[in-house]
Amino acid sequence: MPQTAPQSGHLYAVEVRDHIMIAHSFKGDLFGPAQALHGATFVVDVAFMAEQLTDEGVVIDIGRATDALKAVLAPLNYKNLDEVPVFSGRNTTTEVVARHIFDAMAQAARAGELGTGGNALSRLRVTLHESHAARAWFEGPIGA
Amino acid sequence: MPQTAPQSGHLYAVEVRDHIMIAHSFKGDLFGPAQALHGATFVVDVAFMAEQLTDEGVVIDIGRATDALKAVLAPLNYKNLDEVPVFSGRNTTTEVVARHIFDAMAQAARAGELGTGGNALSRLRVTLHESHAARAWFEGPIGA
Amino acid sequence: MPQTAPQSGHLYAVEVRDHIMIAHSFKGDLFGPAQALHGATFVVDVAFMAEQLTDEGVVIDIGRATDALKAVLAPLNYKNLDEVPVFSGRNTTTEVVARHIFDAMAQAARAGELGTGGNALSRLRVTLHESHAARAWFEGPIGA
Amino acid sequence: MPQTAPQSGHLYAVEVRDHIMIAHSFKGDLFGPAQALHGATFVVDVAFMAEQLTDEGVVIDIGRATDALKAVLAPLNYKNLDEVPVFSGRNTTTEVVARHIFDAMAQAARAGELGTGGNALSRLRVTLHESHAARAWFEGPIGA
Amino acid sequence: MPQTAPQSGHLYAVEVRDHIMIAHSFKGDLFGPAQALHGATFVVDVAFMAEQLTDEGVVIDIGRATDALKAVLAPLNYKNLDEVPVFSGRNTTTEVVARHIFDAMAQAARAGELGTGGNALSRLRVTLHESHAARAWFEGPIGA
Amino acid sequence: MPQTAPQSGHLYAVEVRDHIMIAHSFKGDLFGPAQALHGATFVVDVAFMAEQLTDEGVVIDIGRATDALKAVLAPLNYKNLDEVPVFSGRNTTTEVVARHIFDAMAQAARAGELGTGGNALSRLRVTLHESHAARAWFEGPIGA
Repeated sequence: MPQTAPQSGHLYAVEVRDHIMIAHSFKGDLFGPAQALHGATFVVDVAFMAEQLTDEGVVIDIGRATDALKAVLAPLNYKNLDEVPVFSGRNTTTEVVARHIFDAMAQAARAGELGTGGNALSRLRVTLHESHAARAWFEGPIGA
Repeated sequence: MPQTAPQSGHLYAVEVRDHIMIAHSFKGDLFGPAQALHGATFVVDVAFMAEQLTDEGVVIDIGRATDALKAVLAPLNYKNLDEVPVFSGRNTTTEVVARHIFDAMAQAARAGELGTGGNALSRLRVTLHESHAARAWFEGPIGA
Repeated sequence: MPQTAPQSGHLYAVEVRDHIMIAHSFKGDLFGPAQALHGATFVVDVAFMAEQLTDEGVVIDIGRATDALKAVLAPLNYKNLDEVPVFSGRNTTTEVVARHIFDAMAQAARAGELGTGGNALSRLRVTLHESHAARAWFEGPIGA
Repeated sequence: MPQTAPQSGHLYAVEVRDHIMIAHSFKGDLFGPAQALHGATFVVDVAFMAEQLTDEGVVIDIGRATDALKAVLAPLNYKNLDEVPVFSGRNTTTEVVARHIFDAMAQAARAGELGTGGNALSRLRVTLHESHAARAWFEGPIGA
Repeated sequence: MPQTAPQSGHLYAVEVRDHIMIAHSFKGDLFGPAQALHGATFVVDVAFMAEQLTDEGVVIDIGRATDALKAVLAPLNYKNLDEVPVFSGRNTTTEVVARHIFDAMAQAARAGELGTGGNALSRLRVTLHESHAARAWFEGPIGA
Repeated sequence: MPQTAPQSGHLYAVEVRDHIMIAHSFKGDLFGPAQALHGATFVVDVAFMAEQLTDEGVVIDIGRATDALKAVLAPLNYKNLDEVPVFSGRNTTTEVVARHIFDAMAQAARAGELGTGGNALSRLRVTLHESHAARAWFEGPIGA
């Protein structure tokens, strides 16, 4: 049930990895030299969490989950994010891109596009590794 | 106390790593080519979590915890999991094996086999890395 | 609000990495050969967590956070921790050092030294990797 | 020219990664418990080496190289190697599988299947990671 | 002496890591979607190789080597490489950028800017990791 | 024969990993703050190289090789290297410790202590990772 706090209960998770290579620039003195047009490889991990397994013994159909992630990443990969409409007027920081991928994957789950186990998912976590020394993530309930 | 939600409070953890190399097959169309007999290296991380440290300044005696993990993994290592009785009739997915290791380690903790700090453990998380691009975990309270 | 259980809600995080190289010894039979003077490289990850982003789209000014971490680590780096007063009379286990770094970083956050986003931080997690096979962490609220 | 000793000269390389999940057993007392049917995830890195770049500035068309690797791995993936004819009568150790992949990739290079840059390749190295603590590789000239 | 084949003799090496975040685009059908403006994080490893150690027991002063690498990377970091004059008219592939960094570091070594041990260096290898699944490198003698 | 240049021919390798945790100090202005007593975790990779495999299909008996490495590391692990006689009067830099482990492993190979395949080994490479951002290695022929 939705009010469950998974971390004080138990939780299964499966996490898959993909990556994108993007250009972007940031607005704000905070960003120093990163205000210029530059880029990043984001290695993307998506963790699918559920309180129970399907009859087959999985959190989710990992093949369909991987395909769904690829579909979510495709409009970003090899792009200049400064020109991708969904990010218009916003800085595409690692945090913001993690949230965007979370929202799209959660929407896919709610729309039944993740197949077996997709309906039982309770939470997602999207982690973006931007170098060997820095990463960001967004985690939350799949919602309604 | 059992009702504590560790994630809204504080938590110490120690995590150790080992690995097993197993064969298995899966039942269910979901698994596609993985329905055939194949295998996996599972790199196994077990995180021991507690709200406070022992007088020595540790969550747990890492030597005994490592030995306990090795004892739990031994009946699985270099085996065909299709023939290991404890998994009879079930798919030995990464999720299922993670849960099995969790249950055995939690039982060891409750039985006092983990030594110093073992009694104060509140939670465990067992993560199985199956490749450079996929992993699964099970986390929960040690229970009673 | 402080009673929020972040894991049943949502959470953003940014994590940065640095490292220290220290000597130390431990007291207690539990530690076996590690009672002798030895040492460790601790690769240190600090995760800064918040429920919302700043107007710039970040959890925190990653440059200032990195500088703050470097300042916290400086008094430990290239030291024999047996002679560092703040640890007097205690074993400088990986857990204890993780907690020490947590406390210092939380204090920096409360003192406003982390810049943009620092005031909105809700939690920190400090992870110390001591080898390819073992690590420890401390996580908790920033507090007041 | 074939007599060049690349390591005393200069060398460019590009390396790509994929993985397979296989079952197998070994013959020989040397292998102890690994004589039983078990399995492994092999994370496979293939390094393509050349003394000069193509006009486009690459060692090789990384897309075609990746596809060629996938084609070479497909007959092994999700298989029991004890039943794969090409390995008949031999132990499919990490070294032997590395050599097999090397031979197949070198053959693809000689057959012109790797596209741009494929003709100028001088050497390959195939590395198989079998756990977090062990790996094997085979390196050699592409030959004639 | 230049004819030495280091790999049939012996060799010491020290390797240090840094990273850059850049934007760029490629010319040539070969590159498919990467012809568009996109970007990458390059995690850069530079290995300094020598046949003997200094009196202090090092290949090179790792502090000065790290500073020299930082100086070489600075004109590239947070830049659109399409607009960096040194790469004018060329594709800034991972291979090409690796070679550029190699040339600059070799020049620093020959100019005596690497301090202790710098004069005894025989070879360098520059590796650029562009994602969790691909990397490129250039290795060669320091030359004259 | 010893003049063989393995890198212009072909080469098999198997690499295993272990680690040690040591204290030490350095003499020489070059070392700056590392002149003080501090410490390190060295994650140790030893690569065993041969031009051909044994009848069983291996470079070496990985079990015996792992045991031999453990025996070589034992006198260093949990020690203050400043007090280990074999290093008397020398800086125990990462390079020097790598060379020491190389010499001891090569001696074990020549003494026939590595079992199957040990006699056919041509080269070893010993890599010590001292942090997430620095490592050193020594590679050479096993010699006579």
